[in-house]
Amino acid sequence: MTYCVGLLLKAGMVLLSDTRTNAGVDNIATYRKMFVFEEPGERVITILAAGSLSVTQTTIARLQEACSDNPDADATTCIMKAPTMLQVAEIVGRTLSQVTGEVADKLTRMKQAANASLIVAGQRRGGGMRMFLIYPEGNFIEATEDTPFLQIGEHKYGKPILDRVVTPDTSLAEAQKAVLLSMDSTLRSNLSVGMPLDLAVIEEGACRVGPSRRIEAGDPDFAAMSEAWSNALRAAFRNIGI
Amino acid sequence: MTYCVGLLLKAGMVLLSDTRTNAGVDNIATYRKMFVFEEPGERVITILAAGSLSVTQTTIARLQEACSDNPDADATTCIMKAPTMLQVAEIVGRTLSQVTGEVADKLTRMKQAANASLIVAGQRRGGGMRMFLIYPEGNFIEATEDTPFLQIGEHKYGKPILDRVVTPDTSLAEAQKAVLLSMDSTLRSNLSVGMPLDLAVIEEGACRVGPSRRIEAGDPDFAAMSEAWSNALRAAFRNIGI
Repeated sequence: MTYCVGLLLKAGMVLLSDTRTNAGVDNIATYRKMFVFEEPGERVITILAAGSLSVTQTTIARLQEACSDNPDADATTCIMKAPTMLQVAEIVGRTLSQVTGEVADKLTRMKQAANASLIVAGQRRGGGMRMFLIYPEGNFIEATEDTPFLQIGEHKYGKPILDRVVTPDTSLAEAQKAVLLSMDSTLRSNLSVGMPLDLAVIEEGACRVGPSRRIEAGDPDFAAMSEAWSNALRAAFRNIGI
Repeated sequence: MTYCVGLLLKAGMVLLSDTRTNAGVDNIATYRKMFVFEEPGERVITILAAGSLSVTQTTIARLQEACSDNPDADATTCIMKAPTMLQVAEIVGRTLSQVTGEVADKLTRMKQAANASLIVAGQRRGGGMRMFLIYPEGNFIEATEDTPFLQIGEHKYGKPILDRVVTPDTSLAEAQKAVLLSMDSTLRSNLSVGMPLDLAVIEEGACRVGPSRRIEAGDPDFAAMSEAWSNALRAAFRNIGI
């Protein structure tokens, strides 16, 4: 499985994904699940992927091919040329739906299913930041002021902390802390989500990925934060009356 | 859905269940999901139920009928007469499996499925405390020192807090706090789990349900604990460095 989360805040967008992929429990691998399409200052699109690796890889590859390697690339097929973020989401949704359908046809005789969900977050110069969750069928929902975060994959373990601390006014620094603690709870409780992590911050109006980093297993800052959070939770727990 | 959790500690067992049942989102009702079979001082068995109400109600009803209303009740069919807790788990598993099979037959033509999981916790005089999670198929696993809690239903939201604070040495007071906070996180993040709650404590060796209570929506103690926990979490979050 996977855990990916995106926050849409007034100050910008914060995105975090893990990298664990597994087929059963005895075939575990590390794959990047965060993909950046960027023309700095003009347009930035970040896609987070959860689900069957064959579906997500093919979808991302087709989205890339539709722009860079394609002389016919135009605003209806290339997400770097689409005039609005809504149309970007529609292109991504259509591509995901096609790939899912093709893979499903192949898998029918095995009585298996494969699907994937994506988070698409971006901004083009002159437009607002937008963040979409694309369902396997290709339809999508969008983050709003009322619900300023989207999650895919193993989203339940890390939801309580987000429900409690994230609002549209959360700063980018606090937001990074929130997604990392949300991921920390997930990592502790579910083996199918694993380090390293990919973290990206997109500041409002910048139209480029700002601070971004890969957090490796054993990263001392992440370990210290995780330890401090555990200790704080235990202390809070001790101090609560019943 | 449902959230039920049971803790098996050296000092005793602590059990908590919600009461929300829903068929779709527009048909919501309140049903007790905690069932007590008790001969105080001799034997206590508590069953928590998650899943299709038609399956869980019929299973519990058959378990009751096999003891109280049945002149043929014997140690192979009545959980109050079975010589060990293991055999209690086997009777419960067999009953659940039969009921699930019967309901599944009825539902096949509707292309629907129904199943349920149970937590069975108990002690008989002269035996140790034991706690089992019975799967829909009737097979089961048992709580141990390494894994001193079992959960059924919407278990993911409330698992991180249990992973962090529960060990076999946790006191019964702390354990009640832990399950209530685990439930609180679940209630906040998932609408299909709802108040009131049923809480029961079984002290080691007592072979009876000790303190038990129904916690109604708006219960001032639970609301205060929930509020204090939210505040403590937010304070801890603010104080964590990144």
